[in-house]
Amino acid sequence: MTTSHVSHILELPLFLDRNANEPLHRQLVTQLREAILQGSISAGTRLPSTRSLALLLHVSRTVTIAAYDELFAEGYIEGRHGSGTYVVEDLSLLKRSPFPSPAGPPRWLRSVEPLLLPRPVVPREAINFRPGTPDMQFFPERTWRELWRQLGHAVPPNAYGEPAGLLELRVEVAAYLGRARGIACQAEDIIITSGATQAVNLIVQATLVPGDTVALEEPGYPLARYAFRASGLHIVPIPVDDDGLDVSQLTNGEAAPYLVYVTPSHQYPLGSRLSSVRRVALLQWAEANDSLVIEDDYDGEFRFHAPPLPALASMDRAGRVVYIGTFSKVLMPGLRVGYLVATAPLRERIARLKRVLDYHVTWPTQYMLAAMLRDGHLERHIRRMRLHYAEKRRQLAEIFAPVASWARLCGLEAGMHVSLALHPALDAYEIAREASARDVYVPTLDEYYTGTPDRNGLLLGYGALDAQQICTGAQTLVELINEHI
Amino acid sequence: MTTSHVSHILELPLFLDRNANEPLHRQLVTQLREAILQGSISAGTRLPSTRSLALLLHVSRTVTIAAYDELFAEGYIEGRHGSGTYVVEDLSLLKRSPFPSPAGPPRWLRSVEPLLLPRPVVPREAINFRPGTPDMQFFPERTWRELWRQLGHAVPPNAYGEPAGLLELRVEVAAYLGRARGIACQAEDIIITSGATQAVNLIVQATLVPGDTVALEEPGYPLARYAFRASGLHIVPIPVDDDGLDVSQLTNGEAAPYLVYVTPSHQYPLGSRLSSVRRVALLQWAEANDSLVIEDDYDGEFRFHAPPLPALASMDRAGRVVYIGTFSKVLMPGLRVGYLVATAPLRERIARLKRVLDYHVTWPTQYMLAAMLRDGHLERHIRRMRLHYAEKRRQLAEIFAPVASWARLCGLEAGMHVSLALHPALDAYEIAREASARDVYVPTLDEYYTGTPDRNGLLLGYGALDAQQICTGAQTLVELINEHI
Repeated sequence: MTTSHVSHILELPLFLDRNANEPLHRQLVTQLREAILQGSISAGTRLPSTRSLALLLHVSRTVTIAAYDELFAEGYIEGRHGSGTYVVEDLSLLKRSPFPSPAGPPRWLRSVEPLLLPRPVVPREAINFRPGTPDMQFFPERTWRELWRQLGHAVPPNAYGEPAGLLELRVEVAAYLGRARGIACQAEDIIITSGATQAVNLIVQATLVPGDTVALEEPGYPLARYAFRASGLHIVPIPVDDDGLDVSQLTNGEAAPYLVYVTPSHQYPLGSRLSSVRRVALLQWAEANDSLVIEDDYDGEFRFHAPPLPALASMDRAGRVVYIGTFSKVLMPGLRVGYLVATAPLRERIARLKRVLDYHVTWPTQYMLAAMLRDGHLERHIRRMRLHYAEKRRQLAEIFAPVASWARLCGLEAGMHVSLALHPALDAYEIAREASARDVYVPTLDEYYTGTPDRNGLLLGYGALDAQQICTGAQTLVELINEHI
Repeated sequence: MTTSHVSHILELPLFLDRNANEPLHRQLVTQLREAILQGSISAGTRLPSTRSLALLLHVSRTVTIAAYDELFAEGYIEGRHGSGTYVVEDLSLLKRSPFPSPAGPPRWLRSVEPLLLPRPVVPREAINFRPGTPDMQFFPERTWRELWRQLGHAVPPNAYGEPAGLLELRVEVAAYLGRARGIACQAEDIIITSGATQAVNLIVQATLVPGDTVALEEPGYPLARYAFRASGLHIVPIPVDDDGLDVSQLTNGEAAPYLVYVTPSHQYPLGSRLSSVRRVALLQWAEANDSLVIEDDYDGEFRFHAPPLPALASMDRAGRVVYIGTFSKVLMPGLRVGYLVATAPLRERIARLKRVLDYHVTWPTQYMLAAMLRDGHLERHIRRMRLHYAEKRRQLAEIFAPVASWARLCGLEAGMHVSLALHPALDAYEIAREASARDVYVPTLDEYYTGTPDRNGLLLGYGALDAQQICTGAQTLVELINEHI
């Protein structure tokens, strides 16, 4: 460790100006003192010998000796017999200067503040019903470790990768989408992204300009709304009912939105599904108005008793649908990998944009996911998780059954969250507030609206909760409902 | 494998509409036929038994038997004695329908086409002098594998990470920047990004609005230029000489650019360094005009005989500098991890924006880099690479020495590339063209200009080339120069 400390300080930028009026040893003292004060050289660090520092700085040894003498006199450094010079251990008197901040609002903070998503700080022990997090308890740890071990022997690539993503992974994703979602695409149709959120942002940036109109489900996915807002787009909220987006409310002709964002498999947040009739109507509308449809299939893998409907993208014959998927819900949120399937010329444009924005998704993660898909590991995991999530949903339904006339679980049997419609006499916000006081965190539906909410309800993300947490959390809510009726 | 094929097809979305006029078995035939034609079910796949398919679809077995009979008659499927029903192996007669594309330019492709960086397709065997790729030949493979093995035992996180990045990694980066670059920052001042490019994009999006003026080194980093253009900014190119950016050419007052992008340690592409005097002048200019300075220290770790100068960020007392670093040059380009150091309120704004854009950098990579930094592995690697790059640069200098009056290596001894100033009588473009015919790829300096080039030269990225390649490549260029004088 001592050697490493010595060499660390050799990395410190010390610059002696031979033309300055200040003597060289004084310049050295000032810079070393500042480095110690700022914490760039930490307490107890071994300094290089006066000889090696002199060699390094191309100065005579008298300069470094004079500098060390002065620092010694000032109490910054100390000598240990036979083992060199060290920064003193007790720097408690010296205050580290904070990283500077401009005084007042700077002129260059010109853009609109990116919106802060409402996200309360939830204590670790609390039961948190916020949706979006999968269950890692059943994470395929053995498979993951084995693949991880194998990848450790791979030679890392010697260059930047493809902006569109690793070919091996794109091949596997295309095959997976063919098998699982009926989308007949090839590796070349796919772009690997760092999640569904980046996919939405890439699509928007590759196509629209500020002021353009886009349609969003109401209620809908907040991150899509923020992405649209951050790009200066005009959002038209379109109501959702038990059959998904009310396609008939999309305007036509000149006023038709350029883009519609939908979650057909499992509407976010209400949990309904876009009906077959509306799927056909949406595709016809898109073709008639030459508009683009983003199909976000964020947790479409998880449906329990409902038979699957074909993905919109698989029904699209006019190249108007761009399909988004993610590995965050089916494997691990911290991986940050998703994908999109787009027709040319959109995908070419997105690949170019991605190169300029962040180049490509990190190499090891792409390899790991390709391996997870290749031998069916991911699909086996999905099938297992489907059973677990179905059981959790069943459990929730059972607990809320006694108060069914006051609180009704909505949406089809799918996904990792469910919405709970409350009787108009109940105040969702008040129930959430009181639940929070009992360490049960539950978001209210109104967070998911662009405009004025037309529903009174709560959202119950059960993905990451275990049976005990679901039971305790849901029963707390049932008690609160009983107290309020 | 057979079992896995069977279950794969169960994933296929098959939807039978009981209210339709078309009989159920016909609906099933149509959907299976389409899936086979489109390749969603591939040749040779084993289909589920008529019994299990009937159970799955909640139909009577007569429906599935009728459907299979019909597909059998049409030649799509075949039975193998005692082992079930398979899609025929020879589907050569059936053409897979291509993924659809809209006819003509779609209405929704509104935004300006992201600029395509000039990047020729270079054959694998060719010698490619394009800068920006590090030498992976000396990659610390053993250390990497050992850390990788250790990480394989870590339990993956159960949730999304911090948008600003993993705390462990930010702590290590802050300590590293203190030791290596004299920047006294804390973990909280740092945001982990997917590389320097994303850092530039985040800063621009968090601060400026379209039409704002920014200053860029001329010649300068193309990806910064594209990032500014993609955000609709107005670029003012500022000339560079042997002392780096000519700070005196920055306008003041109302007309002062909101942001200046500089590469002080090793100007990209010319290789000069921003002098001490100009560093002070740039900071004074930024404070007087309340402008923001992006300090991109992309390969500042590699300097050979030149003594280090303090980072601009370490001299900044007014919170006007945002510092950018990357692991792409010091470790591996495919990792896609970098960082920025910014003062509040900029870093808070960037963290919020990052959450909406792509959330955070992938978990495994952040962990790996934290481990690489923690025990000094990365810094040991950097010191080793410094020797290798210095030797490569020395080699280049030796080869070009005989033609010094016609081709002069520019910039200080640093980095992984060098610029080669050519005598005005030589045509850089013509030399690059002829070199390419001899399988030596070398970019011309004019690619790096926003406006009209004021220099005639080539760029020689030697990072990823070995001694033999450098020798052959440089000698080819010397031969060409001799042929042209």
